[in-house]
Amino acid sequence: MTTPIIQKNEFTDHLVALQKKICTALEEVDGVAVFRHDDWTRGTEGGGGHTRVLSNGKVFEKAGVNISKINGVITSAMKDMLHIQGDSFFATGLSIVIHPYNPFVPTVHANFRFFEAYDTNNQIVDQWFAGGTDLTPYYLFEEDAIHFHTTLKNCCDGYAHQWYPLFKKQCDEYFVNKHRQNEARGIGGVFYDYLRGSQAYPINYWQDFTIANSLSFLPSYLPIVHRRKETPFDSKHKFWQEIRRGRYIEFNLIHDRGTTFGLKTNGRTESILMSLPPTARFVYDYQPEPHSPESQLHELCLHPRNWLGV
Amino acid sequence: MTTPIIQKNEFTDHLVALQKKICTALEEVDGVAVFRHDDWTRGTEGGGGHTRVLSNGKVFEKAGVNISKINGVITSAMKDMLHIQGDSFFATGLSIVIHPYNPFVPTVHANFRFFEAYDTNNQIVDQWFAGGTDLTPYYLFEEDAIHFHTTLKNCCDGYAHQWYPLFKKQCDEYFVNKHRQNEARGIGGVFYDYLRGSQAYPINYWQDFTIANSLSFLPSYLPIVHRRKETPFDSKHKFWQEIRRGRYIEFNLIHDRGTTFGLKTNGRTESILMSLPPTARFVYDYQPEPHSPESQLHELCLHPRNWLGV
Repeated sequence: MTTPIIQKNEFTDHLVALQKKICTALEEVDGVAVFRHDDWTRGTEGGGGHTRVLSNGKVFEKAGVNISKINGVITSAMKDMLHIQGDSFFATGLSIVIHPYNPFVPTVHANFRFFEAYDTNNQIVDQWFAGGTDLTPYYLFEEDAIHFHTTLKNCCDGYAHQWYPLFKKQCDEYFVNKHRQNEARGIGGVFYDYLRGSQAYPINYWQDFTIANSLSFLPSYLPIVHRRKETPFDSKHKFWQEIRRGRYIEFNLIHDRGTTFGLKTNGRTESILMSLPPTARFVYDYQPEPHSPESQLHELCLHPRNWLGV
Repeated sequence: MTTPIIQKNEFTDHLVALQKKICTALEEVDGVAVFRHDDWTRGTEGGGGHTRVLSNGKVFEKAGVNISKINGVITSAMKDMLHIQGDSFFATGLSIVIHPYNPFVPTVHANFRFFEAYDTNNQIVDQWFAGGTDLTPYYLFEEDAIHFHTTLKNCCDGYAHQWYPLFKKQCDEYFVNKHRQNEARGIGGVFYDYLRGSQAYPINYWQDFTIANSLSFLPSYLPIVHRRKETPFDSKHKFWQEIRRGRYIEFNLIHDRGTTFGLKTNGRTESILMSLPPTARFVYDYQPEPHSPESQLHELCLHPRNWLGV
């Protein structure tokens, strides 16, 4: 790599501003709860983070909007996990997980990340952007799914028409409980990793792309919250939400690379595990009633759909 | 290895009889719920299991008492995980996890296992016994802890006085959430792995030892259930139980080798994950009130105690 570039600071500044914007918007929708602020450092290692968590709101039962910005030595565990070379690294990212109280409002997850590796002379030897946004409904509303995917597609299409189908497919393949016959966590979205610079798409292109995607987070999700947050529900719906939340936990703790990476790089456990739902339920061999709305959602997770026909 | 031995069938027969005995005893204590029986096979691969799960009882909210008996080709994933050689394997075990409803009754886990590896000529090249029993209380009653550890120690002492202190230490080291500053899952018990035959302790010695330990399971646990099952509790106690159940899930899905082994050897997911508690709660940065019974239990998990002074 020849020219050192400035993604690092520009991207971090963007994430800090976006974190504030998203927290403000969520507090407005909730109307009751506010975000708690926890700033932390990584002790003798480098970096730290800004954790923002809202709990027990009227609309949101648990919501985390976290920035981490860490640096340090590349350990052999990291080399194995990330398939990278280099002696030291810098990594920054914004992670968002929102667990609404009402089972008719979907859970959403997004993250937007930048990673840079350096050699012993502190020269950049690798860098990439990564991220994505995905939705985990408990009940299917087709108009919500189409709104969500359309927003993400429109954003991707501003760069090239190939990205949405590619990153939608990667999302369907990633957020999967392999130990449950590849059952998806939800209805997907977009997911991209290792977006390295090339002649055709220099690293700045991917920075712009990732920033644009991060800005499409609120428009992809908030209209769905507004549409569903007053829907009446009972304990049966809540039970099903907690069953699906159990699957969410299984994915995050068994399969998710972000969680594993965080725990292995001595990240702050409470900030990493803020992604876990506030309550969950594990019932032996639970099967939703055939032809019920619950069973429809379950079938959808076993057979991901192509929402926009592309 | 010279003489092929008959551990395989003798040990399996013992586990089948013990499974029945334990289920009957638990049904008697519960008085309401009965075990559901699910027998399964591993498809085109070899073996299967007998899963017994009781749900929503009066005393037990969820209890699993499972036998698995599998065989097959040793994959490279298994070689990495188990640090073994050989071409094919046989593994059998009894796994017990009991989640009581009342937060004053502790959760208990035990398993008793035998593993055998064969070369291409089907000759035994490795074999070992493994297992253990450990207790996860939500509130500390010293007399319960002492009863539990004394029962396990008495059983181990029947073989040699060195085993209890050694296997107690291994238990304290194993059932730990490394990502939470080595917080223990509970108050331990005994844990042993790779008990291979030697001149001093032939494999039959370890078979006897493992069988004796498995027979001490009911006496170590049932008196505690009887003592605590009528203790009055309220939603505050249940809340704390669900917080600790969250830690139980974290350990099982992130760190437990048994869970990982089961999922990687194409075990039956529902049988493996029966260990997960029926309900759980994940509260961001939850801290029990200082000097409360909850805080006392938490402190105990951070600083394992030597219950019997040995």
